[in-house]
Amino acid sequence: MSGRSVTSKVLALLDAFTPASPELTLSELARRAGLSLPTAHRRALELVEWGALERGPDGRFHIGLRLWEVASLAPRGLVLREAALPFLEDLYEVSHENVQLAVREGLEVVFVERIAGRAAVPVLTRVGGRFALHATGVGMVLLAHAPADVQEEMLSAPLQAYSRKTITDPVRLREVLADVRRCGYAVSDGQVTVDALSVAAPIHDADGAVVAAVSLVVRADNAQPSALAPLVRAAARGISRSLAGRTAAQA
Amino acid sequence: MSGRSVTSKVLALLDAFTPASPELTLSELARRAGLSLPTAHRRALELVEWGALERGPDGRFHIGLRLWEVASLAPRGLVLREAALPFLEDLYEVSHENVQLAVREGLEVVFVERIAGRAAVPVLTRVGGRFALHATGVGMVLLAHAPADVQEEMLSAPLQAYSRKTITDPVRLREVLADVRRCGYAVSDGQVTVDALSVAAPIHDADGAVVAAVSLVVRADNAQPSALAPLVRAAARGISRSLAGRTAAQA
Repeated sequence: MSGRSVTSKVLALLDAFTPASPELTLSELARRAGLSLPTAHRRALELVEWGALERGPDGRFHIGLRLWEVASLAPRGLVLREAALPFLEDLYEVSHENVQLAVREGLEVVFVERIAGRAAVPVLTRVGGRFALHATGVGMVLLAHAPADVQEEMLSAPLQAYSRKTITDPVRLREVLADVRRCGYAVSDGQVTVDALSVAAPIHDADGAVVAAVSLVVRADNAQPSALAPLVRAAARGISRSLAGRTAAQA
Repeated sequence: MSGRSVTSKVLALLDAFTPASPELTLSELARRAGLSLPTAHRRALELVEWGALERGPDGRFHIGLRLWEVASLAPRGLVLREAALPFLEDLYEVSHENVQLAVREGLEVVFVERIAGRAAVPVLTRVGGRFALHATGVGMVLLAHAPADVQEEMLSAPLQAYSRKTITDPVRLREVLADVRRCGYAVSDGQVTVDALSVAAPIHDADGAVVAAVSLVVRADNAQPSALAPLVRAAARGISRSLAGRTAAQA
């Protein structure tokens, strides 16, 4: 048994947990990780000992608080979130709508933060959840500012339709992305769920690279994107400044 | 090289990252994990490949977004947070002060969420951060409802003084904990930093066990704990109800 394979087995055990299956029995864990029951058991107990996994009263495994604590040190996770939070709060307070913060990971958008009141329009996203880049407002911002090879990869594959308004024509999407770069914000009007509209703007790091995006998601029926855009762009600028200040302080 | 030791080496690499040192060079990583440079290098690259670690432009390692995503499935992390968020927002909006959500891990409190405006009183806590149970409001709530052996362990060891007002006398602390259980909330008046006062209340799961605590932290000088307590307790009840509903839906 090589060292490489043990590392990959440990990681496979973590990989077994998904938003749809956050709690697993030992046999589910073994099957999903592709391990024998005794191997899965031995490794899982090591992970429990360290706190990467925990067991419930029913014996099922779930992700442990200790892993969550270590993971909170991810610069693109809670570190970004901490820089952004006061600005997200401001956006929420003036709108009482969904406020989202996201980063790009490959061809997907990962939601790092979501603030929503009880009365806000329902959205499909959750913190730690993923979505394709071409449908959401934050995704379009991140795709518009992604390296050329990422854009080409996205535009050369079939574009999934989440609603009847999702842009699935690559030529049209290319035009929209050019608009996003020119205007400084993206509008997704019913492209994820027909009743929701999002306005998103880019967050830059100290070097000017787009590292994240922030959006406001409102009910589509009487939304005024051009009125929301300055609000979202101001928040994005504030977060960019705060992030640059933190990076400077750390260095 | 036994399998156990490989798992522990992988976990030691994650353990090397701390809030004070979220970015590490390879040699720092090897030294902190107690591994040789070649071993640390090989394992770190495996972790990078999976996404548990990422490398910056300067070659330094940091915790990766993929680990953060998996860790977001921790029931006591983001799952609790999602149930609590609307109530935390309400508390924040009526107060514009610090709102905190925390759980107990051994003899420490771990902050799962913190919402704060720019004008709120500065606090020492951060999301994913830890603190001793006896000083903070949330900690006192969690200690008051902890198993007897946890309370005895806490009360039999020296109690660290964070400020001149921290309760370090175990007899006095025992009385305060009885008050917390009787009144349904805890007040930490300058016991972490002298200028801050927190009011905290317990969050129960469907079985009535205290699984978390919520607090409001305000400036100590003109705070009225008895006026804040109903607000915090109402939020705690709302979160408890939301949490019980989620657990029921999952089962």
